[in-house]
This record gives sequence, C-alpha cells and structure tokens, in this order.
Amino acid sequence: MSFQLISQSKISKARLGKLKTKHGVIKTPFFMPIATRGVVKGITSTEVEELKAQIILANTYHLMVKPGEDFLQKIGGLHKFMNWEKPILTDSGGYQVFSLAKHCKVSDEGTEFRDPKGGTKYSLTPEESIQVQKAIGSDIMIALDECTPKTVSRKVAKTAVNRTVKWAERCFKEHQKNKQGQLLFAVGQGDRFLDLRQECIGKLKKINFDGYCYGGMAPLKTVYKMLEKIMPEYPEDKPRYLMGVGYPNDILESVKRGVDMFDCVIPTREGRHGRAFIRNSKVKLTDPGFYETVNFPQTKLQYSNKPLSTSCNCTGCKNYTRAYINYLFKIKDYLGSRLVSLHNLAFYLDLMREIREEIRKGRL
Amino acid sequence: MSFQLISQSKISKARLGKLKTKHGVIKTPFFMPIATRGVVKGITSTEVEELKAQIILANTYHLMVKPGEDFLQKIGGLHKFMNWEKPILTDSGGYQVFSLAKHCKVSDEGTEFRDPKGGTKYSLTPEESIQVQKAIGSDIMIALDECTPKTVSRKVAKTAVNRTVKWAERCFKEHQKNKQGQLLFAVGQGDRFLDLRQECIGKLKKINFDGYCYGGMAPLKTVYKMLEKIMPEYPEDKPRYLMGVGYPNDILESVKRGVDMFDCVIPTREGRHGRAFIRNSKVKLTDPGFYETVNFPQTKLQYSNKPLSTSCNCTGCKNYTRAYINYLFKIKDYLGSRLVSLHNLAFYLDLMREIREEIRKGRL
Repeated sequence: MSFQLISQSKISKARLGKLKTKHGVIKTPFFMPIATRGVVKGITSTEVEELKAQIILANTYHLMVKPGEDFLQKIGGLHKFMNWEKPILTDSGGYQVFSLAKHCKVSDEGTEFRDPKGGTKYSLTPEESIQVQKAIGSDIMIALDECTPKTVSRKVAKTAVNRTVKWAERCFKEHQKNKQGQLLFAVGQGDRFLDLRQECIGKLKKINFDGYCYGGMAPLKTVYKMLEKIMPEYPEDKPRYLMGVGYPNDILESVKRGVDMFDCVIPTREGRHGRAFIRNSKVKLTDPGFYETVNFPQTKLQYSNKPLSTSCNCTGCKNYTRAYINYLFKIKDYLGSRLVSLHNLAFYLDLMREIREEIRKGRL
Repeated sequence: MSFQLISQSKISKARLGKLKTKHGVIKTPFFMPIATRGVVKGITSTEVEELKAQIILANTYHLMVKPGEDFLQKIGGLHKFMNWEKPILTDSGGYQVFSLAKHCKVSDEGTEFRDPKGGTKYSLTPEESIQVQKAIGSDIMIALDECTPKTVSRKVAKTAVNRTVKWAERCFKEHQKNKQGQLLFAVGQGDRFLDLRQECIGKLKKINFDGYCYGGMAPLKTVYKMLEKIMPEYPEDKPRYLMGVGYPNDILESVKRGVDMFDCVIPTREGRHGRAFIRNSKVKLTDPGFYETVNFPQTKLQYSNKPLSTSCNCTGCKNYTRAYINYLFKIKDYLGSRLVSLHNLAFYLDLMREIREEIRKGRL
C-alpha cells in the first residue's frame, strides 16, 4: 500500500498521511509546484529543491507535443532531463486537450487533436496517455478522463462519467502490463450532479487505483459543497487530489474537507506578474486575513527597506528589499518575476507545512 | 596610492597589479560584469558574487534617468539597494548620452538631452555626472568625456579632446570637494590620431587621476595598433581601462598591450540569446582556438548529455546537460537565457584568473 493515513483531525475532515513513491515519501497534505514543460518557469530545479518542495507536477499534453514521447524515452525520462530527483506527478493530458488543443475530437476510443502551434495531429487514447507518462517516468500518473466545460447538461455530464470510467479501466490495464513502481490515480467526474459523482467514484473504487482525484471546472463555492458530500465516498485509505486548486484560502478550506493533494499555477503565474503572497504572522492560520497580497510595482513601495516577508527564508526575502523588487518590476527586469515566483512557491510550501503542523496539534 | 603594480611581464606589456577601493582590493587584470540599471539582467547579486566577480559596472546615464539621483541618495546608494558588497564602477554617462539620448546638445558647458522613453529633459554637466556617481556611491567614478562617433574628422576629434580635458578638470575639482574614498578615472580620447591621443593623455596625467581609460569607437584592429603606441604614454603606476571591450581574444590581445581593466555586454547579451563561450582546455590560452562558441538551440545538441563545459563550475554546468539547455531555448523559457548568461560570466571571470596566472608564471 503506497498511502499511509497517519491521523484524522477530530475537528474537521483534515488528515495527515504519507505517500510512498519511487522517488521518496511525501507528507500529506502537500502542494505541487508546476513545471508544465519540465521547468518551473525561469527557475532551476535546484532552487525548487532548496524550497523543500516534495514533488512537482509536469503536463503530459505539453511534454507530448514538445519534446515528445520518443525524445523523453531516449533521454531517459524527465527526472534525469531536468535534474530533479524527487517525485513527479503528471496529469493525463486530457484537461489540456479539451482546453488548449485545436480541432479536438472526442470519442469512446479517445481523443484526437492538433497542436495549435505546429498544427501536427496527435491522438491521445487512454493507452497512449499511459505510454507518454511512462516515457516521462512520472511517479504518479493520472488516468485519462473527460473533463467537461463549466455547467454542462446532465446528459453531457453522464456521458463524460461513463467515458471517464471506461478510460480509467483501460489505463489501469495498460499500466498493469509494466508497472515499474509507478502509481496510477483516477479522476472522479460528474460536474455538479452528486449522484453522477457518486456513480463515478463508486465504479472507480472497484478498480482499485492508488489514489483518486476530484476533477471538473465548477466555481469553488460549488466545489466546497460537493467536497463535503462526496469526500466521504472517496476511499479513506487512498490519497485525494483536488486538481488545479487554488488560492491559499481554497487550499485550507479543501484540506478541512478531506483533500490531501494540490497543484496550481497561481503562485508562479501571479509571481511573474508581480503579485506576492505574504503570511500575516499576527493572524492564526484558521482566522480570516492570515495572508495578504502585495502588488509590484507601486509608488508606495519604492522606498520600502523591508523584505517581502520577514518570516520567509527565500532568496528574495533574505537578500532584497521591497524597494529593489519594486524597481525590478518598474524597469521590467526578469529578476523581479523570478524572485516573486520563487517567494510565492516558498509561501505555498510553508503554508502546507503549517497546515500539517496545525493538524498534528489538533488545531485544524 | 590606490594602485600597486606587482609585476610586469618580460614577454609582453602585460601587468599584474592590485587596485584598492572602498569596497575591497581587486586583482588586475580584471573584467566587470555589467549591471546596467543596478541588476545583471535576470541574475541575483548573490549569483554574481558566487562567480567570484571582483567588481561590477553600472551605467550612470540609465541610473540617472531611473531610479534617479534623488532616489539613490535617499535609498543609501546602489551597493545597499542591490545588495552588492564588492566594488562598483560607474561610467560617466557620456557615452550613453551620445548614443542613446534624444535631442542631445553638447556645448563646452556640458550636455543636455531628453530621455527617449519619458521625454524628460536632463542636463549632464561634468559636475552633475560626479554628483550622480556620488549618489550611486560607486567606488570608481569616470570623468565626463566627449566620445565621438566612428571616424570623425581631425577637427571634430580635436574639439572633443579639448572638451574632454576641460570636463575632466571640472570633474576632478567637483570630486575634491567631498572625496568619500571614491576613485576618479579620466578618459583618453583622440580617435585615430596618435598626436591627439598623446596630447589628451599628457594633459590628463598632469591632473593626477586615480586611473586612465582608453575611449573611442574605432574597430579593434585600429585599437590594437593605437594601444601599442599610446599605452607607453599612460602612467605606469595607474590602472588602465579599455572601455567596452570585448570578445575573449580581444581581452587577451589588450592585456598583452598593457591594459588592466575590461567591461563588456558580450557575455550576458550573447548568453541571453543562446550563445555560450567554452574554454577549449586542450589548447593553451596563448594559442588560437583557446575557446569556442556553442549556439542554442540547434538539432545537433538535442540529445547531448554533456554539460556546457566540463571545466566550468557554474550552476548550469554543474546541474544541467546541453540537451536540457537546448530544450529551454527551444521552448523559450527564460531559464535558458539565465543559465547561459551566468555561464558566460563564469567563463570571462575564469579567463581573467587564467590570464593573471599566466602572467604570474611568465607565460603571457
């Protein structure tokens, strides 16, 4: 069994656990920095390691288009290529096919699409998704699912659930042929329909995956309510992954509802654009206002001799003032984006450590 | 006396020395990475320090326009602002006024110009240039000079020499008012006319600056010949700075002709655009082909598991393959530019160490 549930909060559904992978054990709940194409934009793998990130996420769709499955096989996998020795999780590629690709055709067989840049035609079947993820060498693979757009009809959601279950079965079978110590998770779909979500997760549970995701594109308020109802149906002894979420408060709320794993572009994307997340150390984690954001550049900060955050240990906070970071954004030097991205990752990873600590102390 | 001449090569005009500044002693000959606006593009001051750079160069013109003299004064100088504790050299701002500014007017009094971005009007007199360099807090300041365009007439060159000498005198006087341990260098001009260069340096020598530069915009072959004739006229007991040069071979050739100090955008600018400098360790420094360049991205490198250079100790060379760097340039991730810029700086700084070692051993 790759997952070990260590404790269950008495005041919420929050849990502490350990997830064992080929490249090491990860403490849950955790957050994954996003290395879409095998690089956390502008940042070295060494810097990500220095932040004590336990695992990173890479995108199957992007890596499939460039550098491609054959290349990754030949080069010996993504860990070696990007010099990252800790675990890697890859999504199935499905979400990006539906949201980014051109001329995407979905059938029971799988999906076909064209790369919007080069125009090259690709097919992404469940089997192909597993093959690409094996070429990447990810520690945690995700079974191909059909992720429906916002607020689809019940009929469309039902079809997606059926397909997701069938595709998951095929991924499972493909994976069984050559397991190589990799873990395989499946995605629960069903949009806003509780019974569809119950049906989906019920069927996936029977196949016995290593972990289960919560997928979909609903607003977060709907997600919270759904998590309250559906998390109890997810296996207790398997990790639960809420895909693509979110702001610090969303992570906290989801942990309280029993989620163990998170990923999001927010810390790096907003960092690149000059928005920094700062822990307000005077406020308890469970109280509103436990963090604030600071936007660069702004006149108010131009003489500020303070670091971004006095409680943070990242390169930016240890070495530079808000005034200097503000100036870097003003003159549009990439170093500004780099420092704030890195700081935001430090903030998210510190947040997860604090969350684990608070659960351990029985305060969350 | 801030400069100490340690030894003089017996086989060339190359020299070894030590230059004492407010922020530490620098071994000559040396190279200065360029932090135009108070940042080596995309790179932290900590990274530049880890490469053991002895000194960096910042541009008075750019810093005068943004963040401005008042700002720098208020914030406590550039060292503190950018967290750099070693020496800083600043140019006079003259070169950029002539080459970048709009509506530039030159008179005996000084220059007037408009910032091409904001349109704001500035005046840069010799006194103002010193004041800005004092606000920056540079260890080595340069007196304002008139840098003429390529191949001007003798008459224009003569006027520029006269002005350069007069401006240098005024800078010297302005500096005497409040020396603050800063050094002041003057620039020898005179274009391709040996007698004008002799006249210029002869007059500047009498004022007794802390060091002397060689300025101008001629092709390097002309510069080599001129250096052979004019360097003997430069004071032996003062450091000599060839401004804005150059490729590795140009630096080597100039060291042999008695130059002690260099700066150039080549390592960082070409690095950002994917061109890496590699020491060919099988070839002696003094033989042709002692270095080669590698351009990214190119198909030939896509599977290369070698580092950029096996003899280099920079972040890129220690942690990543040519294949990965090639891929970073292919997907246009800024990390590629960052790694190759940093590597090129390491190459230039290693080159200077090797040059000093070879002079010490009597082989250069």
